[in-house]
Amino acid sequence: MTSIPAEIDTPDVLIDRDVLERNIERMAAAVRDRGLRLRPHAKTHKVPEIAALQLAAGAAGLTVATLGEAEIFAAYGADDLFVAYPLWVGPRQAERLRRLSATARISVGVDSAEAATAMGEQLGDAAGDIAVLVEVDSGHHRSGVHPDAAADVARAAARAGLRVEGVFTFPGHSYAPGMPVEAAAQEQQALERAAGQLEEAGFEVPRRSGGSTPSALLTDSTTATEVRPGVYVFGDAQQLELGRCALEDIALTVASTVVSRHEGGTGVPRRVVLDAGSKVLGSDRAAWATGHGRLMDHPDARITALSEHHATVVWPEDAPLPALGERLRVIPNHVCLTMNLVDDVAVGRGGALLERWTVAARGRNS
Amino acid sequence: MTSIPAEIDTPDVLIDRDVLERNIERMAAAVRDRGLRLRPHAKTHKVPEIAALQLAAGAAGLTVATLGEAEIFAAYGADDLFVAYPLWVGPRQAERLRRLSATARISVGVDSAEAATAMGEQLGDAAGDIAVLVEVDSGHHRSGVHPDAAADVARAAARAGLRVEGVFTFPGHSYAPGMPVEAAAQEQQALERAAGQLEEAGFEVPRRSGGSTPSALLTDSTTATEVRPGVYVFGDAQQLELGRCALEDIALTVASTVVSRHEGGTGVPRRVVLDAGSKVLGSDRAAWATGHGRLMDHPDARITALSEHHATVVWPEDAPLPALGERLRVIPNHVCLTMNLVDDVAVGRGGALLERWTVAARGRNS
Repeated sequence: MTSIPAEIDTPDVLIDRDVLERNIERMAAAVRDRGLRLRPHAKTHKVPEIAALQLAAGAAGLTVATLGEAEIFAAYGADDLFVAYPLWVGPRQAERLRRLSATARISVGVDSAEAATAMGEQLGDAAGDIAVLVEVDSGHHRSGVHPDAAADVARAAARAGLRVEGVFTFPGHSYAPGMPVEAAAQEQQALERAAGQLEEAGFEVPRRSGGSTPSALLTDSTTATEVRPGVYVFGDAQQLELGRCALEDIALTVASTVVSRHEGGTGVPRRVVLDAGSKVLGSDRAAWATGHGRLMDHPDARITALSEHHATVVWPEDAPLPALGERLRVIPNHVCLTMNLVDDVAVGRGGALLERWTVAARGRNS
Repeated sequence: MTSIPAEIDTPDVLIDRDVLERNIERMAAAVRDRGLRLRPHAKTHKVPEIAALQLAAGAAGLTVATLGEAEIFAAYGADDLFVAYPLWVGPRQAERLRRLSATARISVGVDSAEAATAMGEQLGDAAGDIAVLVEVDSGHHRSGVHPDAAADVARAAARAGLRVEGVFTFPGHSYAPGMPVEAAAQEQQALERAAGQLEEAGFEVPRRSGGSTPSALLTDSTTATEVRPGVYVFGDAQQLELGRCALEDIALTVASTVVSRHEGGTGVPRRVVLDAGSKVLGSDRAAWATGHGRLMDHPDARITALSEHHATVVWPEDAPLPALGERLRVIPNHVCLTMNLVDDVAVGRGGALLERWTVAARGRNS
């Protein structure tokens, strides 16, 4: 949105409907042009209306992080959901998976023989209704097995009665300056090697899934079949500072008000304080970030400190400080955290408020 | 809680009722012994049941950060609320303040003549129902005026029809190793100087309010009249690493499950991954912190990375990795963020679940 509607109280989350739709269309077209399927990660937005726009633009299904998110999107009609997470399944999780698979095609991640075995045991006769993708580590060193160990996990899953459908990886190390190209190459190598191991072990591998937002447009269809970017719908200060989006691609800002203003002096910074803090922006800050977010209309201002309800903004020396009561738009560092902090968001066009959307899957961590 | 009840799905927030009550009683007694009033900050917990325990233990009232929090606690019967924040008041905020002051004694912060003037104009005839405390900067350099400028703000507030009741400060620079003593001394100097300026200008100064959790027990009643600690009810990894609480004082943990387990190898860390990420722990991490939180029963383990649904935990070399599916309790770095991420929490004693409390003021950012 180009300005903050008068009826908005700050802090509040604003979504620019035009920019959102443009981002969704652009990624859909780019992924289609590369011969890949798009399975956007809905953990970024957690909003059924946005999932509907993604599916209408041709997404092959949705990615989610938790069973709770899957349940929300299934209730809104999503019929193909990938829980891209190494779930540990007990009796309650098995019951939820059984219920989900009654209305949607469900696939889940697995990165150990133990978890595959436990999942199969808990699911019992329903195991064959659940597809699994083996998670491989492409260099991020979080979850995921070495590609050479993928076939062992797949065999355990098959023995447990689960349907092995492929491999996936998250090249999270793409979130650093200069890293997207290298991370995308490592992603391709890991998927290729793991898929090869599964094929040697006699599995068909129809799904090879990769792609973070920084690397999604570098992912190659010679190996991968689908990508799972999330942040691209909104953009955020991280993507901006990584050069993966431009200011005009930013669809989400946090409306804020200048509540404190100080010209500064010896040892005391010249600054304003905004009423948007970590409880609405989130406090992710990469080592390479210039601050705790950016200001949409003041690219040289720096958010040097963030507390729960205060953003301290040091102002460029040659520019006058904004006035008390002035309203400014903040671009969060990591938009997935922002969406998970609010119950609803303001959707608008230009400076006009159109409607509010409920963040239906907010807080669905399990 | 000493263990995770079987009926809990992870991740989930667990509150140990015995430790919580002990923390509340201990701070109440310590503050009383120092001749100060305790006005605990309810932004930490956002839970009416916990506010009720604090008030029953003798708290003089509650501190909150936003009008939305004030409305929640007023609805549950709190009758003395201090919005310790430099509010910028427009017509809608004025209407909310008027409604609040019908059932509770309301005081708010102010740190500029402009904000005081705007507040008085918007409140009109109701201005006299609202008490203000002038915020002074005691070295944290966030909001607050220099103590020597406090009288100017107080005069503007009085001219605007508001009731000037005192001064307050937040010594946020106490949140660093070795800083609590120095920050508490600076807090005292700032309150003393500002109160002196107000008295010289002809104001009575019945309230001089200070105190973060690290500094609250160092605040001196020769100057201050009340303190506003918040985190002490639960403790967290920050307080633990600052030496301001012990492991047995930790009342809040996040129940998590080992979902991925890796013995590691050349260039790849030996680690487990837990299903508690930044969307339940929060991602505040001070420069001096040892990691993104701590494990209750494994003090030497280090949470080296946090993503939205994954905590990567590097394990001590001489200890066996926990098993897949094992459930572990995580101590968040900053507990105020954790409480703001969940809609309700599990309250227990030992390993038994007693009840769930709603985080009624969650997300009330404005």
